[in-house]
Amino acid sequence: MQRIGFVGLGAMGAPMAKSLASAGFGLSVFDVRPKNAQPLVELGATAATSLREAAEGTEALVLMVVNAVQTEEALFGAAGAAAVLEPGSAAVTMSTVGPGAVRGLEERLAERGLRLLDAPVSGGVARAERGDLLIMAGGPRDLFEELRPALEAMGSTVAHCGESVGDGQSVKLVNQLLCGVHIAAAGEALAYAAALGLDPRSVHETIRHGAAASFMLDDRGVRMLERAFTPAKSALDIFVKDMGLVRQAAGERGFATPLADAAHRVYEKGSSLGLGGEDDSGVVRVFERGAATD
Amino acid sequence: MQRIGFVGLGAMGAPMAKSLASAGFGLSVFDVRPKNAQPLVELGATAATSLREAAEGTEALVLMVVNAVQTEEALFGAAGAAAVLEPGSAAVTMSTVGPGAVRGLEERLAERGLRLLDAPVSGGVARAERGDLLIMAGGPRDLFEELRPALEAMGSTVAHCGESVGDGQSVKLVNQLLCGVHIAAAGEALAYAAALGLDPRSVHETIRHGAAASFMLDDRGVRMLERAFTPAKSALDIFVKDMGLVRQAAGERGFATPLADAAHRVYEKGSSLGLGGEDDSGVVRVFERGAATD
Repeated sequence: MQRIGFVGLGAMGAPMAKSLASAGFGLSVFDVRPKNAQPLVELGATAATSLREAAEGTEALVLMVVNAVQTEEALFGAAGAAAVLEPGSAAVTMSTVGPGAVRGLEERLAERGLRLLDAPVSGGVARAERGDLLIMAGGPRDLFEELRPALEAMGSTVAHCGESVGDGQSVKLVNQLLCGVHIAAAGEALAYAAALGLDPRSVHETIRHGAAASFMLDDRGVRMLERAFTPAKSALDIFVKDMGLVRQAAGERGFATPLADAAHRVYEKGSSLGLGGEDDSGVVRVFERGAATD
Repeated sequence: MQRIGFVGLGAMGAPMAKSLASAGFGLSVFDVRPKNAQPLVELGATAATSLREAAEGTEALVLMVVNAVQTEEALFGAAGAAAVLEPGSAAVTMSTVGPGAVRGLEERLAERGLRLLDAPVSGGVARAERGDLLIMAGGPRDLFEELRPALEAMGSTVAHCGESVGDGQSVKLVNQLLCGVHIAAAGEALAYAAALGLDPRSVHETIRHGAAASFMLDDRGVRMLERAFTPAKSALDIFVKDMGLVRQAAGERGFATPLADAAHRVYEKGSSLGLGGEDDSGVVRVFERGAATD
């Protein structure tokens, strides 16, 4: 596949589209904020003036929008792309929307002869900029293989998680469960250290390489200690959404997730305290303010 | 300090005492199970027939017993060591007992001219066997420096966490909060993967090196996947105790620990299901059995 449409040039989408442009794919991009397309044009991409224009004539349309509602709207809304995609071409949903949402889209796309690969990502903005994302794909193996060169332009680890659309989202939810719990746990632990009369910075240095180690204790722990909450590298509200998706999928299966539940409540509290647009490492302040179990 | 008494030759204590013996310290050891002393005797240690005999004539008495009650009993019980330790010598409490417990001991020891270093460890049996523990010490710097050669025989990272007895315990509790939450989160995540219809082993392989990474997801995650619950490398009941200590110290300061609370409840549930003596990785079964929020 050589002609790719890309919708959603936000904090993650823009560097992912750049990786595709740099890899030589013929790229047509669209964002509701037209200025977001400009850096892509400089790399050779075409800035479409509408979502449908971005989709027309492409073999694959990548959707990196905010949530399930925007993904559905981009495909099946009044100006949605499904109406102009040619039969046999594919939609690639890379936002985190949960397995149920993509399974619903798959059926509706199939009615038009369109295919779907479910391919959410993990890694954050810095890794997106290096083409170093983890991509978790669900869908037919042949479609995955057709799209592999594009996925490998954006990610250093590209995993085919299962033959069913939704399997990529499911793996992403397992990933988010751990990420969300680990960030909240780092915040709880560092605020706890201070409450015990310790210096959180020196405690962090002592324990970060031992049995307590996590990627998030290192990465977000440093931001917590440096109070680097703005500009947000990854907004706290993303975990309000993602932990909600984790719990929704768990609830549908009658599976109990007490750790994810506890973390979700802390993120919701952070959002209600006005911290939702700041970095997710700001969750430490929920604990510091004694608001974690309000 | 060259003459050291060592009390408590359990799963952790035995390899720690071996490290001291191998480093050439004159070692007198005691355990309520006399056969546990035999491997130490082969390394040149003296097997004492009583706790007081192990303490007599030593410059430092290391206590690696189960909990605060045993630590108090070893020092101040009817046959306790405090009565025979020479003024100026030191007790070294290496079990996890919480900061309050060691602060109480410090005063009583001082009345007899005895010193105390609070020096709990992290790392598990395998690292204890390699002399590769993390040791978190609290107490006067000069005492810490006097004991450093002995501590460095047992640990590869020996941190002086503060001048106050209890600071080592406090850092250990921060460490345990993270370890306990991370193990429970690994269990929740892997059981969740199965509930979502995924293969937990392949999910683990996909996400273990990314943002979801933790020491525990790797270490205990593998044991969960391999169902390696017996013999226990580290018993689940240890986290029932340690997360209880975490919450107790938090409660005394009015600090909320919702993540630790959730994890503690899962360990308690595991214990009530009869899993307390097995490996802590067995906590995954609490989730698999749908008992995590009973």
